[in-house]
Amino acid sequence: MAAAKNNRTLLLFAAVVAVLATTGSSSARSRWDLRLPSEDEAAPLIHMLRPREASAGSHHLGLLRARVPCDSWRFAVETNSVRDWDTVPEQCERYVGNYMMGGHYRADSRAVVDEAVAYAESLNLTGTGNEVWVFDVDETTLSNLPYYAKHGFGAEPYNSTAFGAYAKDANAPALPESLRLYKRLQALGIKPVILTGRREDKREATATNLARAGYTGYLDLIVKPQHVRVRSLEFKAGERKKLEDAGYVIVGNIGDQWTDILGAPEGARTFKLPDPMYYVG
Amino acid sequence: MAAAKNNRTLLLFAAVVAVLATTGSSSARSRWDLRLPSEDEAAPLIHMLRPREASAGSHHLGLLRARVPCDSWRFAVETNSVRDWDTVPEQCERYVGNYMMGGHYRADSRAVVDEAVAYAESLNLTGTGNEVWVFDVDETTLSNLPYYAKHGFGAEPYNSTAFGAYAKDANAPALPESLRLYKRLQALGIKPVILTGRREDKREATATNLARAGYTGYLDLIVKPQHVRVRSLEFKAGERKKLEDAGYVIVGNIGDQWTDILGAPEGARTFKLPDPMYYVG
Repeated sequence: MAAAKNNRTLLLFAAVVAVLATTGSSSARSRWDLRLPSEDEAAPLIHMLRPREASAGSHHLGLLRARVPCDSWRFAVETNSVRDWDTVPEQCERYVGNYMMGGHYRADSRAVVDEAVAYAESLNLTGTGNEVWVFDVDETTLSNLPYYAKHGFGAEPYNSTAFGAYAKDANAPALPESLRLYKRLQALGIKPVILTGRREDKREATATNLARAGYTGYLDLIVKPQHVRVRSLEFKAGERKKLEDAGYVIVGNIGDQWTDILGAPEGARTFKLPDPMYYVG
Repeated sequence: MAAAKNNRTLLLFAAVVAVLATTGSSSARSRWDLRLPSEDEAAPLIHMLRPREASAGSHHLGLLRARVPCDSWRFAVETNSVRDWDTVPEQCERYVGNYMMGGHYRADSRAVVDEAVAYAESLNLTGTGNEVWVFDVDETTLSNLPYYAKHGFGAEPYNSTAFGAYAKDANAPALPESLRLYKRLQALGIKPVILTGRREDKREATATNLARAGYTGYLDLIVKPQHVRVRSLEFKAGERKKLEDAGYVIVGNIGDQWTDILGAPEGARTFKLPDPMYYVG
């Protein structure tokens, strides 16, 4: 059993690394490469990766009532119409797994980052070095796909103990598109600021993980105080306000959750990365 | 030629009516009906409907650079990461046509409205009659699919003269999902308010069209003053503020554009309907 589990874990990490290591270079793509790879391409892989445990039930009133396609549930989630959901609907676990592992997730992330890079390159920068870009951590700078691929791609209830142990390991890979944006912004003279809902007890592991993943030279890593009860949206808006009060200009803001990019001051432009695996309120 | 054009127009309206008339009833859908219909199902229809004129070129820096799949361009557009675009990218005209006509658009609209209905039914209403829900007009209460199906589904540059004539006809059908939400809200005692960027010269035609489409008994129809230069986001946020100052509580707000639902006061919950055909800044 232990050996089988270890083999499954090895295969899992190999698969995730393969997905994340896929070149983000789009210049080689054909102009006519406009169709997405079938979400079934990764199905055998996902099937292998699916945890044995039954996944949690859905709490989406609308979805349960409507039996809407999982792709339409994802639309409603990604546009902030469906909120405060706790797990991916049970019947959408396979769909989300295919989305995350089958190329669709990478393609959506590329579309967002390509636009962010084009926007940044179009700016008339002051050169005073006071222009900053805010990055979230989980599913933005760092990818927790190695963790969620082992936990039902969000169909299992969130386990703070298990995720906490994973975060402490500080081995999460970079989301390649975000790292590409990060490096391009630094080359343009825009300073990255890391703003995360992770709390103080994860600061050291987060800093270690960011460095291992290639994120160096940021202006600041801002984490949530250990024992303060504050919602992510209010906390992050408040920290962005402090940046502006300190004289910085937030030219861009990117995250996977709407609570990363809503709430004044949002930044001059916001960019929403895909995340159909979990919701942060 | 004229006869051929008339035939094509007749076929077009028949096709659009068929799409919009598809029952929104989801209770009959199987629990396992989780896959979307292939976007190619409607392809022959779209091919027939495609205008002869060459569509406008794309101005999406990111997309042009990336050659990202059109589905990923739609993700970036619907999540407000790609902004101020003027036309659907030329290479995505067929994709958007298939999306709008092939069932995907209706399914995404259903997912959003099912959530909105579930949210409204979960409210503890005061019964004082001061609770309102804000509806946009174009691609929210009314569907302009009959127009856009004849104009490249957004791939042709916006023609204010042609669209103005279409709007004056006041024959746009209802977006069926929005009408279902509208009627349910009225049954719950929530008053609809229609808030549109259409200007004063279209008030009468808009009121006539709304009535013909089944939207009756709304609290107010708010249009933009004829000659005031104001962006949609500021105009709509200002009008929502007036509603709150008048003692109304905006329990919900639904539109197809981010400028419908961003800008305080947004309303207690916002719902984003799909619209990959055009952008309103």
